[in-house]
Amino acid sequence: MTGTGAPARRVSRRGLLTGGAMAAGGALAGAGTLAAVRPQGVRPDNPVPVAQVGSAVEPFHGARQSGVTTDPQAHAAFVAFTLRPGTDRAALGRMLRLLSDDAARLTQGRPALADTEPELSVLPARLTVTFGFGPGLYAAAGLDERRPASVAELPAFGIDRLQPRWSGGDLLLQICADDPLTVAHTQRVLVKDSRPFAVVRWVQQGFRRAAGAEPGRTQRNLFGQLDGTANPKPGAPADTAVWVTDGPDWLRDSTTLVVRRISMNLETWDLLGRSDRELAVGRRLDTGAPLTGRTEHDEPDFAALGPDGLTVIPDFSHLTRARVTDDRQKILRRPYNYDGVPTPEGNADSGLVFASYQADIARQFLPVQRRLAERDLLNEWTTPIGSAVFAVPPGCPEGGWIGRQLLG
Amino acid sequence: MTGTGAPARRVSRRGLLTGGAMAAGGALAGAGTLAAVRPQGVRPDNPVPVAQVGSAVEPFHGARQSGVTTDPQAHAAFVAFTLRPGTDRAALGRMLRLLSDDAARLTQGRPALADTEPELSVLPARLTVTFGFGPGLYAAAGLDERRPASVAELPAFGIDRLQPRWSGGDLLLQICADDPLTVAHTQRVLVKDSRPFAVVRWVQQGFRRAAGAEPGRTQRNLFGQLDGTANPKPGAPADTAVWVTDGPDWLRDSTTLVVRRISMNLETWDLLGRSDRELAVGRRLDTGAPLTGRTEHDEPDFAALGPDGLTVIPDFSHLTRARVTDDRQKILRRPYNYDGVPTPEGNADSGLVFASYQADIARQFLPVQRRLAERDLLNEWTTPIGSAVFAVPPGCPEGGWIGRQLLG
Repeated sequence: MTGTGAPARRVSRRGLLTGGAMAAGGALAGAGTLAAVRPQGVRPDNPVPVAQVGSAVEPFHGARQSGVTTDPQAHAAFVAFTLRPGTDRAALGRMLRLLSDDAARLTQGRPALADTEPELSVLPARLTVTFGFGPGLYAAAGLDERRPASVAELPAFGIDRLQPRWSGGDLLLQICADDPLTVAHTQRVLVKDSRPFAVVRWVQQGFRRAAGAEPGRTQRNLFGQLDGTANPKPGAPADTAVWVTDGPDWLRDSTTLVVRRISMNLETWDLLGRSDRELAVGRRLDTGAPLTGRTEHDEPDFAALGPDGLTVIPDFSHLTRARVTDDRQKILRRPYNYDGVPTPEGNADSGLVFASYQADIARQFLPVQRRLAERDLLNEWTTPIGSAVFAVPPGCPEGGWIGRQLLG
Repeated sequence: MTGTGAPARRVSRRGLLTGGAMAAGGALAGAGTLAAVRPQGVRPDNPVPVAQVGSAVEPFHGARQSGVTTDPQAHAAFVAFTLRPGTDRAALGRMLRLLSDDAARLTQGRPALADTEPELSVLPARLTVTFGFGPGLYAAAGLDERRPASVAELPAFGIDRLQPRWSGGDLLLQICADDPLTVAHTQRVLVKDSRPFAVVRWVQQGFRRAAGAEPGRTQRNLFGQLDGTANPKPGAPADTAVWVTDGPDWLRDSTTLVVRRISMNLETWDLLGRSDRELAVGRRLDTGAPLTGRTEHDEPDFAALGPDGLTVIPDFSHLTRARVTDDRQKILRRPYNYDGVPTPEGNADSGLVFASYQADIARQFLPVQRRLAERDLLNEWTTPIGSAVFAVPPGCPEGGWIGRQLLG
């Protein structure tokens, strides 16, 4: 409820702010457009029976790891570890053999070898376990020369308020499934089997819409925005945007992952009127269409002028600043919402576990991040409070293990 | 990993403990029985398409509140408030009119009046909002004589290690839905509208299996146990077990809710062998059948003796201690799992948000709780760390509000 005057004034360059009645006005404006976002509009051709949510399976073995281009599951736990002193190349090999075996079994609905609650392993619910290697893992293995150059702490941005408790990590396990009990049990098994080798550094749990709640739709974050519209479309250019397609065998079919914890200030966001929010985003909140378009995936027209002679889509909008036209330069966003416990006064602890995959952080992620840090108006309501970077090594065939190409 | 010697010895009165190989032995024993719990065994006659998960609706208006006998949704947030000084009978009336209106709209997939993210309100996913009145609410309203006698802090039990941050509360909002984003948004709206009247005391978030992951099955907790087998079956006796069926209009069609936060020590539980776990519970872990039976709902035979001359179901088992034969005396358990962030050493922060509904706490809940506190072997691995008690007032008709019979 405090400190909102400045950003509010800054947004209202078109005089759209209506003062104290903003919140109510926003709701009324919204009510008229709800038909556009009602789920009845979505009719998948072949609805999946809910009875299959639990038994649905994603592959574990393959040239590339699952959990990257996999259609995002409803629940995620990002678990980052710090390697214990003495976890060297050989120990890492043992650790990753064990964790790969666990993941191979659990993702297919079978208990891990030392699974003490095997009844919790029978519903994979599209479980994926994706392994990420932080800079410290390469150092511990004495293989720093094999670390992709941009897998390193990100440069500091003026907007950052990073906290160590959400940052860094030598090893990441990204656990995703459509069932929260499956995620909890998988996390438990993997953390237990990691104990000889590593300690837990941080865990970030997140959620999206439940499986089947809104099939085929882009996810919404807690600001109500559609989030992920501009992802590269599946196909050849997306392939090279996400995956490394050549190089030595520990790089080919790898990717990189940036995890940022973005605190979202719902208190100040909620004071904004609907039009101001849409100017900040550059899109309509109901349909996700660019302010110059009609549907979510319409091409934005950055040159279009409004009656006031200004561009319809402001230069400070998130859409403008995050814009990448070349599919090969795009990042694949796979974010999850988090919602902690509010303060006694009712202020939310909400935000986004932002996760993006890209072949090269320096070439794809950093330019966008620099543009956003410089001018994106959404910075007024969002604060990065955690940051971590991982290489996501290639997948493994049956009987193999994640990391063998690097460490074996 | 510490302090487990004593309980382990106590369980192994039949010499079933196999020492250090317990965990692996448990897993192997489990592997042989998994066919019994595989979800393929469940084939609902009319599978619901997943596309309906988001649009499914539970009623808000009616003689009794929803969220009690409602088939439990996948996600819950229990939000307890402390009334601000000065929130008297008249202010409570205003607060509950507002919150009832919010709940009536949101549960039906419509934005609340002051909803600032209306797009997040269109997928109710079986949302229910259930109101509970703590002892302090009656006092604040000057209506202590209308408080059901057993709606008061529970007597202290020797097993309790209660923490104020999970205990008490003047008002409870139990928010349940099959979609986590719906729960988060609903919590946000209701907390905002409560601000003039109350501060947030605690929030407990929990989960069960995802909608459709395991239809028609009793939920499992993080020990892997089926949880809720002995609930009263729907029908006439259950009706009088849960609901108050006579008395003045602020009591008729009401019930009471006990919320207990039960920490579950997965570290020591995981050291137990499978047979010892089953003795502690009195049921098989795979099927949930009593140790004398074949299927989950078989009647236990407490007199049956094993080859060693001891009863097959031990007297210290949870099944024995929690046993209530008269349906009218049963409690309706509606628990949710919680899973926080593990310690650096990998020790889980897991447990149960135990929630039980019953017409009368003194008559139904307390006798069971006393028997459990006295001897239930599960106490070795579980610790109550929070406790709160609420009256759940009758429902309201369209245009009415929850609490009117008491406060209006």
